[in-house]
Amino acid sequence: MDRFETNLRIPGPTSLPSTVREAGSRQMINHRGPEFAGVLDRVTSRIQPFFGTRNEIVVLTCAGTGGLEAAIVNTLSPGDPVLAISIGAFGDRFAKIAQAYGAEVTRLEVEWGDAADPGAVRMALESSPAGGFKAVLITHNETSTGVMNSIPDLAQAIRDIAPAALILVDGVSGVGAVPFEQDAWGLDVVVSGSQKSWMAAPGIALASLSERAWEATRTARMPRFYLDLAKHRDSQRDGQTPWTPAIAVMFQLDVALKHMEQEGQEAIFARHAACAAATRAGLKALGFELFPDLAVASQTVTCVRLPDGLDWKSFNGELKARKLVVAGGQGKLTGQVFRVGHLGSVTLDEILAAIGVIEEVLVETGREATPGAGLAAAERAGLAALEAAGHAAPDTSKRIARAFA
Amino acid sequence: MDRFETNLRIPGPTSLPSTVREAGSRQMINHRGPEFAGVLDRVTSRIQPFFGTRNEIVVLTCAGTGGLEAAIVNTLSPGDPVLAISIGAFGDRFAKIAQAYGAEVTRLEVEWGDAADPGAVRMALESSPAGGFKAVLITHNETSTGVMNSIPDLAQAIRDIAPAALILVDGVSGVGAVPFEQDAWGLDVVVSGSQKSWMAAPGIALASLSERAWEATRTARMPRFYLDLAKHRDSQRDGQTPWTPAIAVMFQLDVALKHMEQEGQEAIFARHAACAAATRAGLKALGFELFPDLAVASQTVTCVRLPDGLDWKSFNGELKARKLVVAGGQGKLTGQVFRVGHLGSVTLDEILAAIGVIEEVLVETGREATPGAGLAAAERAGLAALEAAGHAAPDTSKRIARAFA
Repeated sequence: MDRFETNLRIPGPTSLPSTVREAGSRQMINHRGPEFAGVLDRVTSRIQPFFGTRNEIVVLTCAGTGGLEAAIVNTLSPGDPVLAISIGAFGDRFAKIAQAYGAEVTRLEVEWGDAADPGAVRMALESSPAGGFKAVLITHNETSTGVMNSIPDLAQAIRDIAPAALILVDGVSGVGAVPFEQDAWGLDVVVSGSQKSWMAAPGIALASLSERAWEATRTARMPRFYLDLAKHRDSQRDGQTPWTPAIAVMFQLDVALKHMEQEGQEAIFARHAACAAATRAGLKALGFELFPDLAVASQTVTCVRLPDGLDWKSFNGELKARKLVVAGGQGKLTGQVFRVGHLGSVTLDEILAAIGVIEEVLVETGREATPGAGLAAAERAGLAALEAAGHAAPDTSKRIARAFA
Repeated sequence: MDRFETNLRIPGPTSLPSTVREAGSRQMINHRGPEFAGVLDRVTSRIQPFFGTRNEIVVLTCAGTGGLEAAIVNTLSPGDPVLAISIGAFGDRFAKIAQAYGAEVTRLEVEWGDAADPGAVRMALESSPAGGFKAVLITHNETSTGVMNSIPDLAQAIRDIAPAALILVDGVSGVGAVPFEQDAWGLDVVVSGSQKSWMAAPGIALASLSERAWEATRTARMPRFYLDLAKHRDSQRDGQTPWTPAIAVMFQLDVALKHMEQEGQEAIFARHAACAAATRAGLKALGFELFPDLAVASQTVTCVRLPDGLDWKSFNGELKARKLVVAGGQGKLTGQVFRVGHLGSVTLDEILAAIGVIEEVLVETGREATPGAGLAAAERAGLAALEAAGHAAPDTSKRIARAFA
C-alpha cells in the first residue's frame, strides 16, 4: 500500500500483493493441458496444511456461498434432519441453503455477538429428532459479527453426543489466517474462498471432504450438477476441472500460496493475531466498544459498535474521502456497527494507517478523541502480540517484507 | 500474438488482448461500493446489444455450465416435461442438468455433425406429452462438433407448435461472435460465458431472461440458492451481486466490452466469419475433411476429421512443440477429430499462423501436403469473406488494430 492506494479494510476481498495481482494478467492457457494441471496440483497441495488435512482439496469456480451449497447438496438428502448453529448472517445463510434444498433444519440461534457454546450444542443434540441429526452446520469465523467460534470444542461436543453426524464447516473467512486442523478435529467438510486469507481475487471456492463425507456423497440425493464434488475430484485426478475454471484466479492463488508457504504458518498466524490485537486496541482507545466479547473476537475481522450520535453514512463518507474503506453492519446490524477486515496480506502498518485515518476523522468532526491515542494503543498491542507469539517485531517485519518481495 | 507467445486456438478460453489481460491485475475493490456498481452497469449494458435484448443481463460467478444450470433451475419444477434438442456433448450436458433436477426430459438426438432440423423439432413437439413441453433446450453453437444451429428457425418452429414452451438457449460459445437477436427471435433464456466471444478470463456467466422467463421463476420449484437469478437481479438493481463476484474477471469484461463497442458488431461478425472461412479453407487444402456440413459449420470453432493414419497424440505433440494449441475430440469423437477455435480477439493473422504450423507438421512428418497450399487457401478465403461482408481487408485490419490499441 502506498499513499495513493486505497486501504481496503473490508473482510474480503482483500488487497492483493503486487506479485499476486500481476498473476491475474497472465495470458490464458488451455485448461485441459499440462500447465493448468501443474497450477491445480500446486494450489491444492499447498492449501492442505492450512486446512490441517490430508484430504484432496476440491477447487470450485464460484463464491464462498457456492462452496457452502456444495457442502450441503453433496452430502445430504431432502428431509435429512440438520442442526444449524447460527451466530450471525453467514450462519443464517448456511441454514437457508440447507432449507432451500429440503433439509429439515433445526436452528440453534445464538445471540449476535456471542460464540456458540459447546454446552448449548450438547443440549440441542440431546433433544435431536429420532435417528439423530444427519449433519451439523457451523460457521468458523462469523464475518457479520466479528466472532470466531472454537471449532475444536464444538466438534468435540458433536462427536460426544452425535458421533454419526457430519460436521460441515463454513471456513470461508478464517481458514488460512489462524491454526486449523480439519483432520485432528474430525471435521467432515470445510469450505473456504480465494478472496479471504488466500490473498487472491474472488471466484474460487475450496472444499475439503473427509472419507466419511465422500462416503455420504454416494447416497446423498439433493440434486446437483455444477457443484458436484465427486465429478470435480475425479477430474482433478486427471489434472483438470469438469467445467472451465477461473484460470486467472488460479494463477493468483498459485503465487499467493507460494508466498504463504515461504512466510510460514506460524508467522502468518502471528501477523494476523497482531493485526487483530492492534485493530481492537486502536479502536478501543478511540472510544469504540467491541461488538463481541474480547474472548471470542475474530482474528480476521473486528466489529465495533457505532456510538450514539455517530452517523454511519457521514462517518463512512469521511473515511472513504481519506481512502480508507471499511465495511458497514450487515443484516440487522446495519447502522449499528462497522467492521474492519484484517486478513490476507494485511500488515501492522496498514492497520496503523487505518486507525490513523479513523482518529483523524473523529478529531476533525469534533468528537472526543485524543490525537495519537488510537495509534499508540494499536502499535503497542500489535507489537506485544507479535512478541507473545515469539516474533520480535523487526524480525517479523523483515520476514513479511521478504515474503512479499 | 508475437512469435514467443502460444497460439491458443481452442474454443475458449481465448487469448486475451493485452489491455484486457492487464485489467485482471488491478487491485481489489469493495464489491459493495460505487466503483464496482459502475463496472457492473457498464458490463451489463454493453452486453445487451450482442444478445439482441433489452432484458437485464444477470452476472453469475461460475462457468458457462453453471449458467446453464441457472437457466433450468430458475424456470422449471421437478416433473416438468422438457424437450432437449441435442446435437453434441454440450446439448447432452444441458439435458443432463435438467434430468439431475428432476425434469421429465425427452431427447431429440441429432447425429453429431448435423444441425437440428426445424421439421424434426416440429414433429417432436407435435407428439409432446399431454399439456405440452414446459421448456425446450437448445444449443446455439455446439462446441464439440463445430456446428451452429439456426436459432431463429428452431425458435419459429417451437413458437408455431408449442407457443407456451419456454425456449432456453445455451449461447455460451456463439453469442457475441455472430448476429444474435434474443428479443426478435422470442428466446426466453440465453446464457453465455466470459471466456468465449467476450475476450475475458473464465469465471463469469451471463444470463438474459425474457419477461415470461422471469414470470416462470416465481413458480419454478427446482431448488436453488447460489444460482438464484431473481436474487441476482434484485441485487444488481442496487449495483451489487448477492455473493462476492469474480471482480478481476469483471474488470477484464469491462475493458473487453469497451473494445467490442469500439470495433462494432458488424466488424466483429465479419472478422469471425473471415477467420472461420480461412480456417475451413486452409484445413481443407491440407486434406482435412470438415466434420459437419459446410452449411451448418460454426463461425467460432472448426471441427475436422483426423485422416486415417494420423495419430492424434503424436500430431498434437508436434503442434504443441510449435506453440500451437488446438483442441482434440470431445466425448465419443475423441481421437477422431480435432478442433480449432476462432473466437474472441482472433485475427486472420493468427489463423494463418495456425494453418502454417499444421502445414509444416504435415510436411515434416512426411504426409502429402503441398507447402503453401493451406496458407494460400486460408488467406484467399479469409479475404474473400471480409470483402463479401463489405470489409476490405486493409481497412478491417486497421480497425482491428485500433480496437486493440
